[in-house]
Amino acid sequence: MSAEQRTEISELGEFGLIRRLTEPFTVQHPSTVLAVGDDAAVIQYEAGRHTVITTDLLLEGIHFDLMYVPLKHLGYKAVVVNLSDVYAMNAVPRQITVSIGVSNRFSVEALEELYEGIRAACKKYQVDLIGGDTSSSVKGMVISVTAIGETDANRLVRRSGASVNELICVTGDLGAAYLGLQLLEREKRLFLENPKLKPDLEGQAYVVGRQLKPEARRDVIAWLQQAGILPTSMIDVSDGLSSDVLHLCQASGTGCKLYEEKIPVSDDAYALALKFHLDPITCALSGGEDYELLFTIRQQDYEKIQNHPDISVIGHMQEAAAGSVLITKSGKEHPLTALGWNAFPKA
Amino acid sequence: MSAEQRTEISELGEFGLIRRLTEPFTVQHPSTVLAVGDDAAVIQYEAGRHTVITTDLLLEGIHFDLMYVPLKHLGYKAVVVNLSDVYAMNAVPRQITVSIGVSNRFSVEALEELYEGIRAACKKYQVDLIGGDTSSSVKGMVISVTAIGETDANRLVRRSGASVNELICVTGDLGAAYLGLQLLEREKRLFLENPKLKPDLEGQAYVVGRQLKPEARRDVIAWLQQAGILPTSMIDVSDGLSSDVLHLCQASGTGCKLYEEKIPVSDDAYALALKFHLDPITCALSGGEDYELLFTIRQQDYEKIQNHPDISVIGHMQEAAAGSVLITKSGKEHPLTALGWNAFPKA
Repeated sequence: MSAEQRTEISELGEFGLIRRLTEPFTVQHPSTVLAVGDDAAVIQYEAGRHTVITTDLLLEGIHFDLMYVPLKHLGYKAVVVNLSDVYAMNAVPRQITVSIGVSNRFSVEALEELYEGIRAACKKYQVDLIGGDTSSSVKGMVISVTAIGETDANRLVRRSGASVNELICVTGDLGAAYLGLQLLEREKRLFLENPKLKPDLEGQAYVVGRQLKPEARRDVIAWLQQAGILPTSMIDVSDGLSSDVLHLCQASGTGCKLYEEKIPVSDDAYALALKFHLDPITCALSGGEDYELLFTIRQQDYEKIQNHPDISVIGHMQEAAAGSVLITKSGKEHPLTALGWNAFPKA
Repeated sequence: MSAEQRTEISELGEFGLIRRLTEPFTVQHPSTVLAVGDDAAVIQYEAGRHTVITTDLLLEGIHFDLMYVPLKHLGYKAVVVNLSDVYAMNAVPRQITVSIGVSNRFSVEALEELYEGIRAACKKYQVDLIGGDTSSSVKGMVISVTAIGETDANRLVRRSGASVNELICVTGDLGAAYLGLQLLEREKRLFLENPKLKPDLEGQAYVVGRQLKPEARRDVIAWLQQAGILPTSMIDVSDGLSSDVLHLCQASGTGCKLYEEKIPVSDDAYALALKFHLDPITCALSGGEDYELLFTIRQQDYEKIQNHPDISVIGHMQEAAAGSVLITKSGKEHPLTALGWNAFPKA
């Protein structure tokens, strides 16, 4: 944010602000019939397509801390986490709406930064901004994003389709976003104690990037289609592997067996976890915000997937009665529990 | 809210809370392929239909005051104001998503009241709740509703279709919601000064109802279709008649001429305005939140509409160069200005 310029939101008014923020956006899809500027937006997909809709509410002080989250990154992430949910249905996102509530602490220039991040995500993932709402808030920033996407009816993948003996796969690596958050929180504490201190994030670009600028796995969704693989169930890893695999199990009526040694953790995340005296696997199981895809495939698809550099087979589904368990490196069996991020922490 | 029972949200956790709040909802439309419970909801409309999407963000302390707004009414209104936007596209709402952010000040029972209102609106307007998000907030309540609807491509009505000489129509009456708000605010002030005072709303059911429990004009949309009338432009009156007619003019590239004597104001609202030393017509022009439909029709449709008891012809479109004006009862011409509700009041 340039220190030189500060335009008050009240100078533009609600409609002037919407115009200023949304004008730089261009419509990329013929399915976007009508974008910002009417009572509602209008889309039209080809006949026979399913429309997929997901929405997330992000609140300052709960989901993000503007002390270390740049507004541009925040805008980018707010979009990406919703797109990730669309991909997790094996669908392709096409449109988003973005609503914001902001206090007069924020200038028009600050909101332009936020929307620059939103625009970067729209460009990268080829989605159109088609609507939203702007309002003042008493205090703090509120962002509500709705993402809309499409898929062939017969390629939709729910959480509920997994069967016993199917393989459990996860993309990328897990736990780094959580460790990035711990690092940023530590630097914030140190800064608050001694404001002269410069944040020390050297060599931590990977984990910090995973926290501040996550990406959705569009590449994997495209690859699965090319490879002729239709997952039987899928979810994105937002709450943590434990919590999310239990969602698949619960929806599918199965149990699962995961192998600790198969769970992908990056070298950077592993080293940082040890530095923080944390168990790297616990970070992967309970950390959340990785936005990787967790899905099940039929055994006969194993050959197609085994050499993909970014997909790990971490276990398999089993009978519900056998429970949902983790087999440790030492061969012990532990029940999986959902220790993931809780939106309602006990006071 | 029963005083006897208070279940803390943290006792249920995020997923338990979502289950508890959404379980009483039933799916009413075959177009709702998948509702609450996966990464995203799925809908599918028949081939050739347009999908209409609108979203609103409601913040405690800005858009509602829980000192006099019952939670059930709040839930109902949060849905209805979005449905009103869908109708204003000449479309029919079919699905909604609802996201809420709440602090631990709210009990599970309080949220159930909110959702009872949401359910009442879903039932009355036959829409399905298909998703959303729940989260804790640092302070205050946040509600974000997205409404999705459908229409035939050739029956979609935008703000931009009006032409010179077309007739400007409005449904119902205007200003009462604003006067209801003034009344509730006055009673709140009196109560804060003297908590022993009982609120005096006697004989004011109409204006209070217009503020607390507005309805969307589904009936008019259905009637227009039956009567063979396709409005050329349309908007719902949420910001106030002045502001909203100027939106139609701006989008259509026209000016307009409204006649003060034609603007519909209810007897109750008229009497209350005078009691408050307010001009009833100013309340109608600038009050907002009426959720009536404002639309333009071709002159040849006048005969069809003239005897409808709930539609008033209040003026006509004119050349943009002639401006947007109000002709007062005394025959004077006043420029219309958008004095409607501003989401970003000057500090």
